[in-house]
Amino acid sequence: MTQIELARSDKLSPEMRWAARDERLSPDVLKERVGRGSIVLIKNKKRKIKPCVVGEGTRTKVNANLGTSRDKLSLKKELKKLQIAIHYGADAVMDLSTGGDIKKLRKAILEHSSVALGTVPIYEAAINAQNKKGHLSRMTADDILDVLEGQARDGVDFFTVHSGITQAVLSRLKKQRRLISAVSRGGSFLIEWMMLNKKENPMYEYFDNIIEIAKKYDITLSLGDGMRPGTIADATDRAQIQELITLGELADRARKNDVQVIIEGPGHVPMDQIEANVTIEKKMCGNAPFYVLGPLVTDIAPGYDHIVGAIGGAIAASHGADFLCYVTPSEHLRIPDGNDIREGVIASRIAAHAADIVKRVPGALDWDKEMSKHRAARNWKEQIKKSIDPAKAALYRKSSIPKDKDVCTMCSNYCSMRTMEKYFK
Amino acid sequence: MTQIELARSDKLSPEMRWAARDERLSPDVLKERVGRGSIVLIKNKKRKIKPCVVGEGTRTKVNANLGTSRDKLSLKKELKKLQIAIHYGADAVMDLSTGGDIKKLRKAILEHSSVALGTVPIYEAAINAQNKKGHLSRMTADDILDVLEGQARDGVDFFTVHSGITQAVLSRLKKQRRLISAVSRGGSFLIEWMMLNKKENPMYEYFDNIIEIAKKYDITLSLGDGMRPGTIADATDRAQIQELITLGELADRARKNDVQVIIEGPGHVPMDQIEANVTIEKKMCGNAPFYVLGPLVTDIAPGYDHIVGAIGGAIAASHGADFLCYVTPSEHLRIPDGNDIREGVIASRIAAHAADIVKRVPGALDWDKEMSKHRAARNWKEQIKKSIDPAKAALYRKSSIPKDKDVCTMCSNYCSMRTMEKYFK
Repeated sequence: MTQIELARSDKLSPEMRWAARDERLSPDVLKERVGRGSIVLIKNKKRKIKPCVVGEGTRTKVNANLGTSRDKLSLKKELKKLQIAIHYGADAVMDLSTGGDIKKLRKAILEHSSVALGTVPIYEAAINAQNKKGHLSRMTADDILDVLEGQARDGVDFFTVHSGITQAVLSRLKKQRRLISAVSRGGSFLIEWMMLNKKENPMYEYFDNIIEIAKKYDITLSLGDGMRPGTIADATDRAQIQELITLGELADRARKNDVQVIIEGPGHVPMDQIEANVTIEKKMCGNAPFYVLGPLVTDIAPGYDHIVGAIGGAIAASHGADFLCYVTPSEHLRIPDGNDIREGVIASRIAAHAADIVKRVPGALDWDKEMSKHRAARNWKEQIKKSIDPAKAALYRKSSIPKDKDVCTMCSNYCSMRTMEKYFK
Repeated sequence: MTQIELARSDKLSPEMRWAARDERLSPDVLKERVGRGSIVLIKNKKRKIKPCVVGEGTRTKVNANLGTSRDKLSLKKELKKLQIAIHYGADAVMDLSTGGDIKKLRKAILEHSSVALGTVPIYEAAINAQNKKGHLSRMTADDILDVLEGQARDGVDFFTVHSGITQAVLSRLKKQRRLISAVSRGGSFLIEWMMLNKKENPMYEYFDNIIEIAKKYDITLSLGDGMRPGTIADATDRAQIQELITLGELADRARKNDVQVIIEGPGHVPMDQIEANVTIEKKMCGNAPFYVLGPLVTDIAPGYDHIVGAIGGAIAASHGADFLCYVTPSEHLRIPDGNDIREGVIASRIAAHAADIVKRVPGALDWDKEMSKHRAARNWKEQIKKSIDPAKAALYRKSSIPKDKDVCTMCSNYCSMRTMEKYFK
C-alpha cells in the first residue's frame, strides 16, 4: 500500500510516525493530511531512506538539482556535487542528467544519496529515441512508460511528469505569444513531439499508466510545469494557468488512485504575482503541496540568481509554497559547480527558514532566538555553531579578529551590545 | 533656500529638473512631492554632485556603509571601498568611521565621492568626549551641535540623528525587556549618556538647533531608529513604535522649517511584519521617505546576511520603502572588505529592482524585457552587457564554454529555447 492509501485506511506507517516526530506534528494530524494529500512522504517503496516530508504545516523543504549535460559529464563530479548538496542541507536532489551514460549516473547517485531522489524521465526517453531511432519524434508512449518503469525499479523517489501540456495549452501559447515560449527542458521535448506528430501529449493520454507505475512503487508524482514562464514579462499568462487547471484535474486522478502528488510551479514571476500563484495552485489542485522553482523576481541578475530565487522563494513559501527548488548563481550561464551548489542550497534554506518563521512551523523561531541570545552575550563559539553555514561564519570571524575578543571588528570598542549590557540586564 | 523651500515657492530648481528627467517623472509632479516631503533631494548646498533622489515614485535607492573601527583603520582601504561601492552602483554612501582620524577620513571620502555622503555625527561627538573629557557622559549639547556644524561645513549631505530616543522610549524598553536591548551604535552612545546623566536626549532637546544647521546647508535629516530591533524576536515592539511616533512628530517639525527629512527603519523583522512597518511609517510620518536597514528576515545566517537583507529589502521596498541600506555577508562577523561591499551593493540593488518592477517605476520592467529578448535569442554578448554585474556574468560564461556556442553548458544540445525557436516564431 502507498502512504496515502495507508493513511486513508487509518493506518499509521513507520514513515508517518517518524515524520510526525521529526516535524513536531501529532501523528493523527499528519496521517489525516497525508490521507487528504496536503502532505506527501516522498520515498520509493524500495528505498531505505527517510522520506522527504512535504506539505501543510511541515518545514519548507529544499531540492538541489544535479546532473550532467553533453558538455559536462563526469560521474565523479556529480557524486561530489551530491555530497555537497546533502552536506549543506538539501532535503532532496534531482538528477537531471542529459549527458553521458545517464542510466549509470542515476544508479550511482541513487546509491550514494541519503535523501529522496527525483528525475524527469522524459529526458531519458527522448534521448533514447534520439539515439536509437534518430529523432525524438519517433518516441512512443511505450518508450516513455518503459523508462518510467525502469527508473521506478531502480528506486527513484519522485518523477516530474509534464502531463499538463495539452494541445489546448499549446494553442493558447501560440495565440497569445510570449517573449520566451518555453524554458522547461522536459516540456520542450514533449512540445516538439506534439508539434511534429500533431497528437496529444502521450504523458497526458497515458496518465493512467503513469499512475499505475507510481502506485506500484509509491513514487510521488511531481506534475511539471512545462509552461513555466522564462521571464517575468510572461508570468501568470493564459498558457500557464491553462496548464495548471489540467494539473489540478490530474492531481485529483492520481489521488483517487492512491498516488501521492505535488505540483510544480514557476519560474520567473514578479513579486506581486507570487501570492496569486500560490493561492490558485492550492485552490485548483486540492491543496496539493506546491514545489516552486525560485521563483525568480527579476531577469537581470545572472551570476546572482540564487539571491533572486531566495527573494521569490521566501515570498512563495510564506504564502504557502511547500518545497523550494534551489537556483544557483550559475543559472542562465552554465551548469553549476560545487561552489554554486553550496550557495544555491544555503540561499534556498535561508528563504525556507525565513518563511517557516511566519508559517509558524514548530521550532522555527527558536533557532533565531537561540542565535540572538548568543549574539547578545557575544558568545562567538555558539553563534558560529548555530549559523546556517558554520564553516563560512568561522572563516569570516577568523579573518578579522578584534583586539577585544568579545566583540567584532565592525564596531570594536564601541559594540552597542556590550555597552547596553551595563544598563539593561 | 532648501529644495523643499524652493518647491513650496513653486520654483523648479536645476536639481529638480535633473531629478525629474532622471526619474522619468513630470517636473511638476516631482516639485509637488518635494514640497510635500514625500521626495527628498539629498545634497549639501556646498557639494557639486547629483542629488540622491529618494521617495515616492522614484527608483528605490541603495546606500553602502563604509568606515573604520579601532581594529581596521586604513584610509587607503576606505577609499578603495568607496570606489567599489560606487562602481557597483551604490546611490549613496555613509561614512561610519569610529577608528583613526575620523575627521580626516571623512574629508577624504567626501572629496572622492561622486554620490551623496551621510554620517552619524554622534559618533564623532561621543568619541571626542571620550578622548578629550575622559568619558562620553561628559559630552554636552554644544559639543554635539559643534560637530554637526563642522560636518555640515565639510559638505556632508545627510545626517543620521537619533533624536527619537526619549526617556519615554527607554522606560518602555526597560519595562518590556528585549532579547537584545539595542543594536544601533549611535543609539547606544545616546542611551548611555541618558542613563548616566538621567536627562533627556540632547538631540531631542536641541532638535530646533539641529534643524537650523540642516537648513543652512540643505542637509537631509535621517531620523535614526535607535530602537531598531536586533533580533526578529524583538521586532515591532512598544519601544520601537514609541520611538517611531516621536520620529513622526520630529519629521513634521523639520518640514515645517523647510528641512528635508527621511525616516530610518528596522532592522531584524520577520517577513509578516514588514508591510506593517512600512505602512505605519508612511502614515505616522506624513509619507516621509523610508530608509530601511535590510530588514533581516532571520537571525541565523551570518556570512549570508546580504541574502537575508535582500529578501527583507525587496519586500519592504515593494510595500513602499524608498531607500535600502545594504547589508553585507560580513554583517555580525567583521567589518566588510571590498568583496563584501560588492556583494552587499549588488544584493541590495537586486532587491531594489525587483521591487521597482512591482512599484511600476518608469523603465524598471524594460530592463528585464530587454534581457529576456537577448536570452531567447541566445545573444550572450548582450545578455552579459545587460547583467547587473557584467564582469561576474562574463566570468561564469567564460569558465564553461559549450561546444555549441549559442547555448550554455546547463542544457547544451537540449536547450529548450533553441528547440522552441523552431516552432514558435
